[in-house]
Amino acid sequence: MRLLPTTLANRGLDRPRLLLDEHQARRNIAFMAEKAAAAGVRFRPHFKTHQSAIIGNWFRDQGITALTVSSLEMAAWFAQQGWLDITVAFPLNLRQLALVEQLSGKLQLGLLVDCSHTVSQLSTLTAADIRVWIEIDTGYQRSGILVERVDQVKRLLHQITNSPRLRFAGLLTHSGQTYHADSSSSVVERYNHTVRQLKACRQELGLTAAGCPLSVGDTPGCTLAPDLKDVEEIRPGNFVFYDLMQERLGVCRVEEIALVVACPVVAVYPEQQRLVIYGGAAHFGRESLRGIDGEPVFGYVGLTDANGTLHLNRQTPLVTLSQEHGLINDLDGSLVNSVKPGDLLLLFPVHACLTADLYPVYHTLTGETVRRRRSNDSAVQTNICEEESI
Amino acid sequence: MRLLPTTLANRGLDRPRLLLDEHQARRNIAFMAEKAAAAGVRFRPHFKTHQSAIIGNWFRDQGITALTVSSLEMAAWFAQQGWLDITVAFPLNLRQLALVEQLSGKLQLGLLVDCSHTVSQLSTLTAADIRVWIEIDTGYQRSGILVERVDQVKRLLHQITNSPRLRFAGLLTHSGQTYHADSSSSVVERYNHTVRQLKACRQELGLTAAGCPLSVGDTPGCTLAPDLKDVEEIRPGNFVFYDLMQERLGVCRVEEIALVVACPVVAVYPEQQRLVIYGGAAHFGRESLRGIDGEPVFGYVGLTDANGTLHLNRQTPLVTLSQEHGLINDLDGSLVNSVKPGDLLLLFPVHACLTADLYPVYHTLTGETVRRRRSNDSAVQTNICEEESI
Repeated sequence: MRLLPTTLANRGLDRPRLLLDEHQARRNIAFMAEKAAAAGVRFRPHFKTHQSAIIGNWFRDQGITALTVSSLEMAAWFAQQGWLDITVAFPLNLRQLALVEQLSGKLQLGLLVDCSHTVSQLSTLTAADIRVWIEIDTGYQRSGILVERVDQVKRLLHQITNSPRLRFAGLLTHSGQTYHADSSSSVVERYNHTVRQLKACRQELGLTAAGCPLSVGDTPGCTLAPDLKDVEEIRPGNFVFYDLMQERLGVCRVEEIALVVACPVVAVYPEQQRLVIYGGAAHFGRESLRGIDGEPVFGYVGLTDANGTLHLNRQTPLVTLSQEHGLINDLDGSLVNSVKPGDLLLLFPVHACLTADLYPVYHTLTGETVRRRRSNDSAVQTNICEEESI
Repeated sequence: MRLLPTTLANRGLDRPRLLLDEHQARRNIAFMAEKAAAAGVRFRPHFKTHQSAIIGNWFRDQGITALTVSSLEMAAWFAQQGWLDITVAFPLNLRQLALVEQLSGKLQLGLLVDCSHTVSQLSTLTAADIRVWIEIDTGYQRSGILVERVDQVKRLLHQITNSPRLRFAGLLTHSGQTYHADSSSSVVERYNHTVRQLKACRQELGLTAAGCPLSVGDTPGCTLAPDLKDVEEIRPGNFVFYDLMQERLGVCRVEEIALVVACPVVAVYPEQQRLVIYGGAAHFGRESLRGIDGEPVFGYVGLTDANGTLHLNRQTPLVTLSQEHGLINDLDGSLVNSVKPGDLLLLFPVHACLTADLYPVYHTLTGETVRRRRSNDSAVQTNICEEESI
């Protein structure tokens, strides 16, 4: 991210705001789109990271027509933006079957299942041609059938192929264990292990790539794997912004992070080498990394050099969050002597997906506002105008 | 919280929703209002916990006319609901001085300062009669002048009293260190220590209660202190809902918790004694307690008894959160055999303020929806209707 001296002026940055580098986000999108194209792999990016119609258009500019979301209501939202090929990469929520029925008439809908009960319920719908992925747990221990339980996969596959209105889509996994890797080479090893496991499972099912595509999802693996050709589809999401978590893993460089949080300084305590910003858990979330002392860090201050390039300053970690207060330690004491209440600081977030989800809008470096959906936006709000005027 | 068999039927609980027991919330409000009245102390509840016009009316029903908020935009929002006496209990954000000017003409506005620079800037406004509290740090190490630095307090007091348009309001602290207490008696000790420190500071300033009211804020201290009479004002907020954090501290009983999150079950793994709910970091936040094994817990499942009373089940902690996935360990293996995908579970949140802030609406046990403000709602949204229809 590069900030011209005028970038922050007159931008209404009077409270915590998401500051987005459109140019860098577009570069990140182009990188992944080109990598997928080079491997001949379908690129179905996860839109839960940005949840924005306008940023969706930046993907369209790269020829993307299919996407991934993490809830049926998010699918409905993007369907309204004209997206017609959507996978809901989340265990099917049986309490929303009416929405499944509704959406399946409007778009090519992909769903995830991992148990017989869910498939039975799904089979009762009148909706036709729903694409059903069997979710596989390749080691993340979150959801899906354990990859070694091929017997269970077989039974479920049989049930799906015997349901006239369901269409088997393939095997899908989220190998989020890459986030727990301790190096970039370990990320690649975990990615490769996941792919080998999926291929072995497919082979045991007696299926080929044509009849049983493989879909993988995580940003670390998809960014760092030298080659993606052994799968048929990738679904990363975070790469559009990247963040401190990815930087820590060696997945991106600091200059590839496209999103920061702009926060007003509200108190400076030189004697205690501490600052307070307007920016707390309500503005960052509480995802953390370990700092050099082993304690949680919720972000780092970014400082610009003479060229305006934003660098990460590990001497100024965001170490404590209340609802609205953020406490920054100034380890070498340089910041407390150069800023005062009323100044603005830019902070790199730990997990961009969760941080962005707290805001209704991004502010670009060129002064535009880009609206976004937030989780838990709900039907109750439909057609009700915000009353707030300040 | 007590749930009739019909409570959860036909409530649109098809995705994570806040479920609020109005009756219990009103009891919690009445308890604190009566305790303050008995001590002759002004009750200025913190509204950042609920951020709702309707819940604000439940306080009005108890005779409350003054309130606390944590940002100037939250003050503006409640001013629009007809509240005319508001303290912003957050270090004054100098980037919002225009909003201070605007609000001060409409209501009795209280602000916090702890440095000369901020008072100087504030003095330049044409707004008259702004009430200025000096924020004191009594050990929480967040914001405010350290209580032992009476020299600094004196200088700031002098500066305020010499500013024609500012009016000194008193000494204010948030003794959040009560949240780090290890027992309810330790909470009371910490509360008492805070009050003793504030009184000593006031005495050194040569002031009396009439000229220098003391204002304290935390829910643990205000709930458990046997007597509040040594201060002039209390500003607790969380008590309207309470939560697991307060229960752990011995501040409330489980049955006094007025807010839970209703989440659909989306996967059940009997062999692994694990369930997955639709309900992740986007629906709970990531505040955690330590579980019995020392690992983080983000919530506990609540189970009803034969009378419908909701009990906390410590055998089913919410142990892992992704953006939308929540993983529940079923330690004694009873839950995985009694629930299936599509069922609904009720979870007690760890920190009600942060959890509630993720939603635009509460659902009451009697089937009403109660709208609320969320942090980061912004002027950009003004008069723009939500486009979402699903």
